[in-house]
Amino acid sequence: MMKVEEALHMVGGAGDTSYASNSKLQEKAIRKTKHIVENALKNINGEVIYKSLVVADLGCSSGPNAFLVISQIISAVMEGCQKTKEITFLLNDLPGNDFNAIFQSLSLFEKKVKEEHGDQVLPYYVAGVPGSFYGRLFPNNSLHFAHSSYCLMWLSQVPVGIENGGVNINQGNIYISRTSPPIVSRLYLEQFKRDFSSFLRCRSQELVNGGQMILSFLGRKSSDPSKAELCQFYDLVANALNSMVQEGLLEEEKMNTFNMPLYAASKEEVQQVIQSEGSFYIEQMQILESNWDPFDDLDDDQVFDNMKSGHNVAKYKRAVLEPLLVRHFGEQAFVDQVFARFAQNVAKHLLKEKTKHIVFILALKAKYLND
Amino acid sequence: MMKVEEALHMVGGAGDTSYASNSKLQEKAIRKTKHIVENALKNINGEVIYKSLVVADLGCSSGPNAFLVISQIISAVMEGCQKTKEITFLLNDLPGNDFNAIFQSLSLFEKKVKEEHGDQVLPYYVAGVPGSFYGRLFPNNSLHFAHSSYCLMWLSQVPVGIENGGVNINQGNIYISRTSPPIVSRLYLEQFKRDFSSFLRCRSQELVNGGQMILSFLGRKSSDPSKAELCQFYDLVANALNSMVQEGLLEEEKMNTFNMPLYAASKEEVQQVIQSEGSFYIEQMQILESNWDPFDDLDDDQVFDNMKSGHNVAKYKRAVLEPLLVRHFGEQAFVDQVFARFAQNVAKHLLKEKTKHIVFILALKAKYLND
Repeated sequence: MMKVEEALHMVGGAGDTSYASNSKLQEKAIRKTKHIVENALKNINGEVIYKSLVVADLGCSSGPNAFLVISQIISAVMEGCQKTKEITFLLNDLPGNDFNAIFQSLSLFEKKVKEEHGDQVLPYYVAGVPGSFYGRLFPNNSLHFAHSSYCLMWLSQVPVGIENGGVNINQGNIYISRTSPPIVSRLYLEQFKRDFSSFLRCRSQELVNGGQMILSFLGRKSSDPSKAELCQFYDLVANALNSMVQEGLLEEEKMNTFNMPLYAASKEEVQQVIQSEGSFYIEQMQILESNWDPFDDLDDDQVFDNMKSGHNVAKYKRAVLEPLLVRHFGEQAFVDQVFARFAQNVAKHLLKEKTKHIVFILALKAKYLND
Repeated sequence: MMKVEEALHMVGGAGDTSYASNSKLQEKAIRKTKHIVENALKNINGEVIYKSLVVADLGCSSGPNAFLVISQIISAVMEGCQKTKEITFLLNDLPGNDFNAIFQSLSLFEKKVKEEHGDQVLPYYVAGVPGSFYGRLFPNNSLHFAHSSYCLMWLSQVPVGIENGGVNINQGNIYISRTSPPIVSRLYLEQFKRDFSSFLRCRSQELVNGGQMILSFLGRKSSDPSKAELCQFYDLVANALNSMVQEGLLEEEKMNTFNMPLYAASKEEVQQVIQSEGSFYIEQMQILESNWDPFDDLDDDQVFDNMKSGHNVAKYKRAVLEPLLVRHFGEQAFVDQVFARFAQNVAKHLLKEKTKHIVFILALKAKYLND
């Protein structure tokens, strides 16, 4: 079975197919959460003054978004929390993430921060923390604020039971689909519950009492998991892969043992896990809709140029999925083909329906617990 | 002028010429400081009990030595400081260091630790911190213990004034040599004083009162800086480069603008900087001698196989110097040649004299200061 911790990372470096160059979708979500982040930071300092603030970005990836988060938080703290004297940023991602790229862009970022804020900028320190956020990453009571953007839909593993003794009960699909047997949804939901609970439990140990988290991740609108917007999305990926199997370009066996380690939860499922885990209050929950094409900023249901949008969607999705696909299918060469076909599929789909990504934005506050 | 922060890093990855595969010299020093580290850790906990201990390794490089330090400290804390419940390791190096390689070996290391200590192993957390240790790296009063091995002989820059308006006053040499004008030694010493003072000042702000540091770095025995063991060493590198200039294989101009950003201080110079900076007590100072050839463990003055030793010295030195040389001379291709010639030079030199590296080992304790 695929080890998600080893296989899941965005495309590193700064090239044309890198996540650094294809991360606009996440960027939009980060920009939209700016005010929520500002409020959360004021909130933390409203009760206790933290002279030395410690902030974690969970699933920071590599590229400009990691710095966008830091930059927003520096500004928010400088404007709203005058008694804070320094900030530590702990940038977390899986060990396969390109931390070297982040670290090597740091001096450029520092220059920009100085240009923006002058010499009066708050001292800040940046560290990289490798590891899965479904386990412990930081010491007890060491964080004041945690942020995670576009990550918590990723599971720690493909749910156990889907690939059952070599038999894939979800054959022909790579995620929950209308043709998946009902048990597939159930197994995915159970894995999400386990993972999201672990995430909350670990963070509750790491955050100080009253510490805050802002989480944004993909979810779904429908209560039926097989009607998630993301199902349509991964049906189009599956379709691209299946067509290559039919033409003998991909091994059928490989296709039959590939399932996506992610889950688009419903609002109720998310709330239910938070309540039953018990460490956090939900201070706020918003639902955003975001066009599949990150360069399409229109709110209507018309796609302006479906071919171009198909291309845009394929390009950013490739930056996310390429390492995962290459690891499973074992060859770099087929990737161009997969995403060319996927781009076509998206273009066709968008003519019928301008499906959106559903993004949950949660503001959570750690309950006061005994030490 | 060369930007040391960008150019100085060990050869990354895990290949034959990488620092990971050629770091035995440092390994020997780390093993020799084991007891001093153990004592320092007991010392810290003797006064205040730190449940959550924070340890920094300054100049961690990439490869097994970074993990050797962590492993020694975990064992020392588990044996000597039973009230400590968790440890955070902050691995620092310049941004060009191969942090990805460290992070990707972490799971293997965790496995080994578990094999050694069983499930009772103390929880520990690892983070990477990019940046120069001649500036601030961590928040105020956030460290309990700092460790640095084989790094503090590196300067933050080639001393200003040596390459004076395009005229290299140290022509033909790349470090202090018998043929260097006396001002060269003075400029190197002044740069060392500035850098080492900055290092101490920054660490004194970052360490808690009573916090400890164990530092090991190359120094010299003679009070005359041009008689340092390291001068002989870099004379042999300079000789290799000069012979290539004479044969037209390297540009003379490039050679004339290259000086090493390092300094081998004397015991007195080191003590004097610590005293005048004023933040630390010297608890202990030891002087080790280490054969140039890391695989030569004999204490006598006989070289068993001078050709083999020449080869060994060149191999480990290449893992340290290659990125610096390539950055200045601009070509990868000449590196084989340089180190082949250097190996010959070392072999010849060792027949005449088995010169040793002089390694200072310092245990320093932060004075109690007002907050």
